Amino acid sequence: MAIIPEQADAVLQSQPFSRLVGARLTRFEEGMAELSLDARPDLLQQNGFLHGGVVAYAADNALTFAAGTVLGPQVLTASMAITYLRPATAGLRAQATVVSATRSQAVVRCEVYSAAASGEGEVIVASAQGTVLRVERDSAAG
Amino acid sequence: MAIIPEQADAVLQSQPFSRLVGARLTRFEEGMAELSLDARPDLLQQNGFLHGGVVAYAADNALTFAAGTVLGPQVLTASMAITYLRPATAGLRAQATVVSATRSQAVVRCEVYSAAASGEGEVIVASAQGTVLRVERDSAAG
Amino acid sequence: MAIIPEQADAVLQSQPFSRLVGARLTRFEEGMAELSLDARPDLLQQNGFLHGGVVAYAADNALTFAAGTVLGPQVLTASMAITYLRPATAGLRAQATVVSATRSQAVVRCEVYSAAASGEGEVIVASAQGTVLRVERDSAAG
Amino acid sequence: MAIIPEQADAVLQSQPFSRLVGARLTRFEEGMAELSLDARPDLLQQNGFLHGGVVAYAADNALTFAAGTVLGPQVLTASMAITYLRPATAGLRAQATVVSATRSQAVVRCEVYSAAASGEGEVIVASAQGTVLRVERDSAAG
Repeated sequence: MAIIPEQADAVLQSQPFSRLVGARLTRFEEGMAELSLDARPDLLQQNGFLHGGVVAYAADNALTFAAGTVLGPQVLTASMAITYLRPATAGLRAQATVVSATRSQAVVRCEVYSAAASGEGEVIVASAQGTVLRVERDSAAG
Repeated sequence: MAIIPEQADAVLQSQPFSRLVGARLTRFEEGMAELSLDARPDLLQQNGFLHGGVVAYAADNALTFAAGTVLGPQVLTASMAITYLRPATAGLRAQATVVSATRSQAVVRCEVYSAAASGEGEVIVASAQGTVLRVERDSAAG
Repeated sequence: MAIIPEQADAVLQSQPFSRLVGARLTRFEEGMAELSLDARPDLLQQNGFLHGGVVAYAADNALTFAAGTVLGPQVLTASMAITYLRPATAGLRAQATVVSATRSQAVVRCEVYSAAASGEGEVIVASAQGTVLRVERDSAAG
Repeated sequence: MAIIPEQADAVLQSQPFSRLVGARLTRFEEGMAELSLDARPDLLQQNGFLHGGVVAYAADNALTFAAGTVLGPQVLTASMAITYLRPATAGLRAQATVVSATRSQAVVRCEVYSAAASGEGEVIVASAQGTVLRVERDSAAG
């Protein structure tokens, strides 16, 4: 595999939308990637929770990067199924793990965690599964 | 049903994240809602396409609002499955339609369209399906 | 497109499992397919409803055949998301429609209907979305 | 938790469709369930692989039983997303694990394995995620 963690975070930081929401790659190793972002007032919905769209973004992007650890940097998420388990009241940590991969595609799972409202530890806020394809062209990653 | 289109757009505008990405509610009627947003440099990924997370946000939120037309304003998206069909090179129009609803939940479909790269008409860029729940509490919508 | 309805039903009848559950192809035209099956005691779960696995089979196979109308006979369902809306108390009619297709894959939706318990008309019992791939090899359809 | 493994297998055997396909519960403990079935000529599709509908059945039912270990016996699968990774040429082992549960619902993942075509060990043939609800009424399980 050609990408190293710093290169992977550089790819993330080359995505204007990832910079807009303040995402950073906090782990990147064979078969897994972790994307983190802090809660900010402009990422919320009307009741003070992180917007579901932010949670979906985090899961989607963590899936893509995890697949990149086995498929290389030119990848594209083909589909994702996400289940929202509870509202997130703090920052997110999206941890994605490759379930199975061939040369051309990977199935990846992702759990999204947030700090518990109680202040003690983390709780899972969403669980996702996605399929990521290796692409030849420049339409990759994100 | 109690919500009228202006109220629904006011709910959308009360979501800081929806304002951040510049979303607006362009249709809202019994059983359907449409959310639109313009392409902007800070919504892209590294290859100049709209970030998949923005597409997921648009689908997720359109689903939620469409469900709101039949379940009322206190709703929460429980799960979503999204398939990305092609990269979006322009703004998005996410059109969501209720497939079936009971008093407590709705299954909703959503197609996301973008202007064709050729400049002629629109193309579908993603197709989604979601389940939205009516909630009693203040953890609703988004 | 090369397949005609009789050929398509012949493909279905060449699937031993489709014969086991008594499925038949009741519509097959450009962009859509419909698969029907009757309720039978050995297709039920313990409370007298059709087993969810039978509903999933019907949706999965209808999706695959609908995709076959645009991709040709060598196809394979890559993924499916299904939402169960209510228990089915009678036979099923799974109606699948292609949402979008390229030369190599199709995104297809499917609604599964059953006779209403009241005896008046049909009700929707499940809603699904799937991605179907065109394959070169002999691992196709089902 | 009230159910014990023998009771859980008795529930499975009380499903006529599960008996039709020859499923048996091979593990059942707090937070997980495993359902196994043998390949049989009448469970195949036209190319000699296990029919995708059989794989979907196995995943769906394993999810439901795993949820039952934490929610009790009255449960109903609300939705499932399944990705097919490769054709199954032998019997199936569907292993489901609860990701997160509240009093009223559980999110569950399931991997489906089959003996490798090479004869050495198992390969993963499908990966699924589902949401299972606790129900009050008699419309439960399957």
